[in-house]
Amino acid sequence: MGKKLTKRSEDYSKWYNELVVKADLAENSGVRGCMVIKPYGYAIWEKMQAALDKKFKETGHENAYFPLFIPKSYLSKEASHVEGFAKECAVVTHYRLKNAEDGSGVIVDPDAKLEEELIVRPTSETIIWDTYRKWIQSYRDLPLLINQWANVVRWEMRTRLFLRTAEFLWQEGHTAHATEREAIEEAEQMMHVYADFAENHMAMPVIKGLKTESERFAGAVETYCIEALMQDGKALQAGTSHFLGQNFAKAFDVKFANKEGKKEHVWATSWGVSTRLMGALIMTHSDDNGLVLPPMLAPIQVVIVPIYKGLDQLDAISEKINPLVKELRAKGITVKYDNRDTHKPGFKFNEYELKGVPVRIAIGQRDLENGTYEVARRDTLEKVTVPAEDVISKIEFLMEDIQRNIHAKALSHRESHITEVDTYEEFKEVINGKGGFVSVHWDGTIETEDKIKEETKATIRCIPIDVKEENGVDMISGKPSKRRVLFAKAY
Amino acid sequence: MGKKLTKRSEDYSKWYNELVVKADLAENSGVRGCMVIKPYGYAIWEKMQAALDKKFKETGHENAYFPLFIPKSYLSKEASHVEGFAKECAVVTHYRLKNAEDGSGVIVDPDAKLEEELIVRPTSETIIWDTYRKWIQSYRDLPLLINQWANVVRWEMRTRLFLRTAEFLWQEGHTAHATEREAIEEAEQMMHVYADFAENHMAMPVIKGLKTESERFAGAVETYCIEALMQDGKALQAGTSHFLGQNFAKAFDVKFANKEGKKEHVWATSWGVSTRLMGALIMTHSDDNGLVLPPMLAPIQVVIVPIYKGLDQLDAISEKINPLVKELRAKGITVKYDNRDTHKPGFKFNEYELKGVPVRIAIGQRDLENGTYEVARRDTLEKVTVPAEDVISKIEFLMEDIQRNIHAKALSHRESHITEVDTYEEFKEVINGKGGFVSVHWDGTIETEDKIKEETKATIRCIPIDVKEENGVDMISGKPSKRRVLFAKAY
Repeated sequence: MGKKLTKRSEDYSKWYNELVVKADLAENSGVRGCMVIKPYGYAIWEKMQAALDKKFKETGHENAYFPLFIPKSYLSKEASHVEGFAKECAVVTHYRLKNAEDGSGVIVDPDAKLEEELIVRPTSETIIWDTYRKWIQSYRDLPLLINQWANVVRWEMRTRLFLRTAEFLWQEGHTAHATEREAIEEAEQMMHVYADFAENHMAMPVIKGLKTESERFAGAVETYCIEALMQDGKALQAGTSHFLGQNFAKAFDVKFANKEGKKEHVWATSWGVSTRLMGALIMTHSDDNGLVLPPMLAPIQVVIVPIYKGLDQLDAISEKINPLVKELRAKGITVKYDNRDTHKPGFKFNEYELKGVPVRIAIGQRDLENGTYEVARRDTLEKVTVPAEDVISKIEFLMEDIQRNIHAKALSHRESHITEVDTYEEFKEVINGKGGFVSVHWDGTIETEDKIKEETKATIRCIPIDVKEENGVDMISGKPSKRRVLFAKAY
Repeated sequence: MGKKLTKRSEDYSKWYNELVVKADLAENSGVRGCMVIKPYGYAIWEKMQAALDKKFKETGHENAYFPLFIPKSYLSKEASHVEGFAKECAVVTHYRLKNAEDGSGVIVDPDAKLEEELIVRPTSETIIWDTYRKWIQSYRDLPLLINQWANVVRWEMRTRLFLRTAEFLWQEGHTAHATEREAIEEAEQMMHVYADFAENHMAMPVIKGLKTESERFAGAVETYCIEALMQDGKALQAGTSHFLGQNFAKAFDVKFANKEGKKEHVWATSWGVSTRLMGALIMTHSDDNGLVLPPMLAPIQVVIVPIYKGLDQLDAISEKINPLVKELRAKGITVKYDNRDTHKPGFKFNEYELKGVPVRIAIGQRDLENGTYEVARRDTLEKVTVPAEDVISKIEFLMEDIQRNIHAKALSHRESHITEVDTYEEFKEVINGKGGFVSVHWDGTIETEDKIKEETKATIRCIPIDVKEENGVDMISGKPSKRRVLFAKAY
C-alpha cells in the first residue's frame, strides 16, 4: 500500500500511472513496452471478455484462431494496409538458438535464417483473408462471421500501461458478406454493440461516429468508432469497426459465386476492442482515493471486513457473516469475507478503496449487539448503518445504483465538456483551457484538419452519427459546411 | 463433405489428418507449422477451457498475463531449461520494416536491429520468475497461485494438426510456495485435476504417473503426467505437472522472509495442457464415420433434422419443433434445428455424423402423424423411434449414457492393451504387434531406457503412481527392480 496516490489535479498522468500499479492492475515487465497484467487487472479483463463474447455470439459470430505470424509478403498485398502496419512491428528472422562457443550463453544460429521473415501480427486481416479464400466459394458460404481473441504486437516507442503497449490483448472480428449493404450494416451493428457494452457494462458514455479519412484504419473504406471522454478532458477512442469494402477480397482474390453463378468479390468488415478499454475504465471513474469500478465489472462486488478484538469476537462475527456470504453468492453477487488476521481493518479499508470494490461492509462488536452493519459505497464514499434484515436488499440496490450513478456522473462531465464554437480563437481557447470535445464546422478537407492538428494537437475524433444537418462555415477556410464535427486532444 | 474418410484400419494417420480437416476442426495455414483452428474446433476448445478454468479457480488459482517475448538472456539463467527450450524457437531480431528502394515491397530495416534478441515464449517460467522476484518478499505473499491462457511457439520440423504445431494454445500454471512439501502437493493436485478433467469431461481414461529423468521437463525435479492410449495402440501424453524445486527461484533470485524473518528460496511448480488435447479427444473416440464427441464437450449436443416435401410440411414440423428446442435449451442442452432449405436430409445426416454431434433427431411426415421422433445416437449409431412425450427424457438419458459409454469403451480398449511381460523378446513382440502399454520391470538406469528406445522406439511413458511394489528383474540388464513401469510408442 504505502504512500498516498498523487492527486488528479496535481498530475493526472502520474495519478494514472501510480493507480494502475498500486491497485495491482498491471506493471511494466523486463521486456521493453510489454506489460504484465496482474491477477486483479486480469479479472476485470475477463469480465469484459465474457460480456463482449456473449454479445458477439448473440449477434451470430463464432470464435476461431489464426496464426500469430504473418509472412512478410502478405502485408504488402493491400497497399494502404502495409503503409499503416508494416512500419513498427516485431520481425522474426531466425528459428534457432545455439550455445555460444565461448560458453557465454546462447546466440542466434546464423544457419537458421528464415527464407521469408515473419511478422508478429499487428492485426490479422492479411492472414485471415488469405484463409478466407479457401473457405468461400459460394453465396451459401456467406456471411462468414468470425471473431478471434488474441495478442497482437505493435512496436510503440512511448508506451503506457493499458493505453499503449507493444503487446496487447484484444478481439478482432473479421466478417465476409455477399453485398456491400450487408457489410455496412455489420460494421454499424458492431459499433452499436461496442457502445452498448461501454454504456451498460463499463458505465462509460460514448459518442458514436465516423472517422475522417486521415484517421481511418489502414485499408478501410469507412471507420466507425466510439469515443469516450476522460476526466482530464482528453478523448479516448474506445473501439472501432471498419467497413473494408472489397479491398482485402481483391488483394487476396476472394470471390464467391452468387445465386446466378456469377463470380464476385466479397465485402468485408473488421472490428476490435483491446485492453486499452482497461485504461478507459480506470480514467473514467476513478478518484484520488483509487479505483472506482462499476459493479458489473468488479471482480469483488462486496467485501466484508470484521472489526474485532480476539478470536472469540471474530468467531461471533463469522457466525453471522458466513450465512450472509452464502446468501449473497446465491444471488450471484461476488463477495469476499476478509478475515485475515495479518492485517488491521484500517489497512483493509484502504486496500479495497484503492482497488475500487463497490460496496464495503464492516461489522464490529457494537453492530453485533445492535443487529446492524456499516455499509459503505465506493463511488460516493457514503457510509450508513443498516439493520441486518435490510442488508441484502440494500446491497442489491447499491449494485444497481452505483452502476447508474457513476454513469450519470461521467455523462454529466462529458455533457459539460462538449463546447460549440464558431471561431478558431474560441476553439484554441477551449482546447487549451477547459478541454473536452469541441464541436465545430469543418469544410471536409485534410488541409484544415492537418493545420488544426499541427497548431493545437487536437484531431477530429469523429463525425457523430446522430449529428443534425446545419449550414455553417469552416472556422478556418470559411468554406461552407453542412454539419459539425468533434475535435479533441486524445489518448 | 465429398469423399468418405480413409478407414482407421487402412491408415490410422491418414484417417486422423482427413478427419481433422473434414470435420472442420483445423487446417494448415500459409505459415509453416502454424494451424488455423476453425470455428467448430475452436468451440470444442472453448468448452475445454471453460471446464479447466473453473477447476483451476476452484483450487484457488487466478489468471494473469505475461509477455509474449522473452529476452534471450533470461533463457540462459536456468541451465537445464535453456538446453531444453532454447534450441528450436522463433527469434525476433528487428522491430521495423521499410519500403524497398526498388519498390518491390517491404524489407527488414537493418537500422532497427534489437540490442538483445527476443524469443517468442516456448513456455514462460523465465519471464514469470523474473516477475515473481518483485512480487514475493514475505511468507505472507505465498502461496502465489497463478495461471495463464496463452499461445506459445516451438519451432517443430514435422508438424501435425493439434498434435504438434509450431504455435499452439495452452494454459500454464506457475505457483510459488514456502515449503517443498506444499509445492509437491500442488504439483500432485494439478495432475489429479487434469486426470479428473480427462476422465469426466473428455471421457478419456488416463494413467497418472511420474516421468523418468530422461522424459522430465527441462528444469524440473519431478514431472507428473497423465497418459492416454489412442486407438492405434500409441500413447499420448495429455498433461504434465512439474515440481520445480528451487531451481527457478535460485536462477532468478526469488527469496521470501519466513515467519522467523529468515530469507529462503521459494519452491515452485508449473503445469500445462494444450490444444494437443484436441488431438487426444479426436483419436480416443472417433470412428470411420467421423468424429465422436462426449456430450460434455460437444458444441452441438442435439441436432434436429426435418424431413419434408414442400413448405407446408416444413411449417407443420417447425410448429412442433420450436417448442421442443425451447424446452431443451431451458434444460441447458445445446440444440440446433437445421431447417436449411439448401441441403437434403441425407447430406445433413452425413455432416452431423462426421462432426460427431451426439444425438440426432429426425422428424418426417409419418412421425408427425404418429406423434414420434427418430432418435439416433452417434456413439453406437443406433436409431430408435420415440413417442413425443418421452423425447426429452430420452435425450437427457443419452447425454449421460453416451458420455458413460464412450468412456467405458475407451477404458476397455486401454485395459486390454496393458500387457505385462518379463522378457525382451515378448516385449518386442507386443510393442511391434498389438501395441499399447507394456508393463515391465526396469532397473532405473538411463542406459536400458535408451537401449530400448533405440531398438524399439518405445519409451517409458510413466511410472504409475498407484503401482504396487513387486520384486523383479530388469528384462535386459537382469538387475533387480522394485516395480513395473509402462513402456509404449507415443505421439
